[in-house]
Amino acid sequence: MYTLTTFSWVPPFAAGHVRDLRVRWALEEAGMPYELRLIGFEDRGTPAYRQLQPFGQVPVLQDGPSTVFESGAILLHLGRKSEALLPADPIERERAIMWLFAALNTMEPHVGALAELVAFSANEPWAIARRPALEEAALKRLRDLDLYMEGRDYLAASFSVADILMTTVLRLLGQTGIVERFAAVSAYRARCTARPAFQKALADQLELYATAKAPG
Amino acid sequence: MYTLTTFSWVPPFAAGHVRDLRVRWALEEAGMPYELRLIGFEDRGTPAYRQLQPFGQVPVLQDGPSTVFESGAILLHLGRKSEALLPADPIERERAIMWLFAALNTMEPHVGALAELVAFSANEPWAIARRPALEEAALKRLRDLDLYMEGRDYLAASFSVADILMTTVLRLLGQTGIVERFAAVSAYRARCTARPAFQKALADQLELYATAKAPG
Repeated sequence: MYTLTTFSWVPPFAAGHVRDLRVRWALEEAGMPYELRLIGFEDRGTPAYRQLQPFGQVPVLQDGPSTVFESGAILLHLGRKSEALLPADPIERERAIMWLFAALNTMEPHVGALAELVAFSANEPWAIARRPALEEAALKRLRDLDLYMEGRDYLAASFSVADILMTTVLRLLGQTGIVERFAAVSAYRARCTARPAFQKALADQLELYATAKAPG
Repeated sequence: MYTLTTFSWVPPFAAGHVRDLRVRWALEEAGMPYELRLIGFEDRGTPAYRQLQPFGQVPVLQDGPSTVFESGAILLHLGRKSEALLPADPIERERAIMWLFAALNTMEPHVGALAELVAFSANEPWAIARRPALEEAALKRLRDLDLYMEGRDYLAASFSVADILMTTVLRLLGQTGIVERFAAVSAYRARCTARPAFQKALADQLELYATAKAPG
């Protein structure tokens, strides 16, 4: 049995995007049961929680004696346990791992910076001045990904943790209409989010936060 | 023999910071010989190079039949081959891998955004307005890392690829004086950059670019 630590409450805009979604999705794909351990925002800085997660972030996965943090590290840990998450073929397995890193370090910093600007600061003067450069950086990566995805269903030969990470990064652009400009990427995102394991993981996260009460 | 692909020339500000440094450093730590394959900026978008690296980036490592891109994936690939790069103990190995991801996905996006602003846009109006928020985000992670590093020499029980990544991320803040505000992080960065393998890797990269001729 795995124990997944996440927040007991998040502000409404974050529901459906808390990073435990990545782990829930992987666990659902692999048919691995898990239980939740919920913490409040006020627990993030406690010495006890910092022992588990030095940055006070979620998710954390406990797997017997192992405690794993960083969503990328957790997905890699789970990938080693199930061919539903990482291909058995060594070349395809390496490809999935490369793309796991590409999603986290080549795509997410640029996509995330643009998504954050659009969501929280779009009309501020600094954001109006900065937006073209951030858009250019994000669009460049999306174009590269679009070229790669032409004729492919998934990043490696079969579905893997790389697709979980890439899809959750693409979802950051949500309603901006930006992903829709790239046909292959857009079809890929739709293909991944149509998977029953994603739907179950998302519904479970949304249900938790639909009934959670704000602190104070 | 490994083949490491990097740029034949970069603008002077980038010398000493091209990401092949991460791979050179790992190869030196493990005593693994390698040869360079140099490409020009104009090669980044060619179909042949995109077959190796879909985003047109460096580094790429060729290891027999394997081609690996993304510096994080390359370091993990090399880590599996040498205890000089990943501890043998399973708990410490997992810890090193978590910190590899933390360097890439928790530290680098924030540290990198701040470093880029300071280096290229510090006096632009948008940057003056945006800087406090970017500084706050970077300083928060540096404070968390500083707490973690108190009483530790390295991120895991012994030196690992996580330290290579974290050090190269911290080096992005170069002459800003920001790292120096954190005693444990500052001592950690000095400890890592004093390693002979780092010194050799850095000298080799600087030597290449000292003699390289700008295109055109």
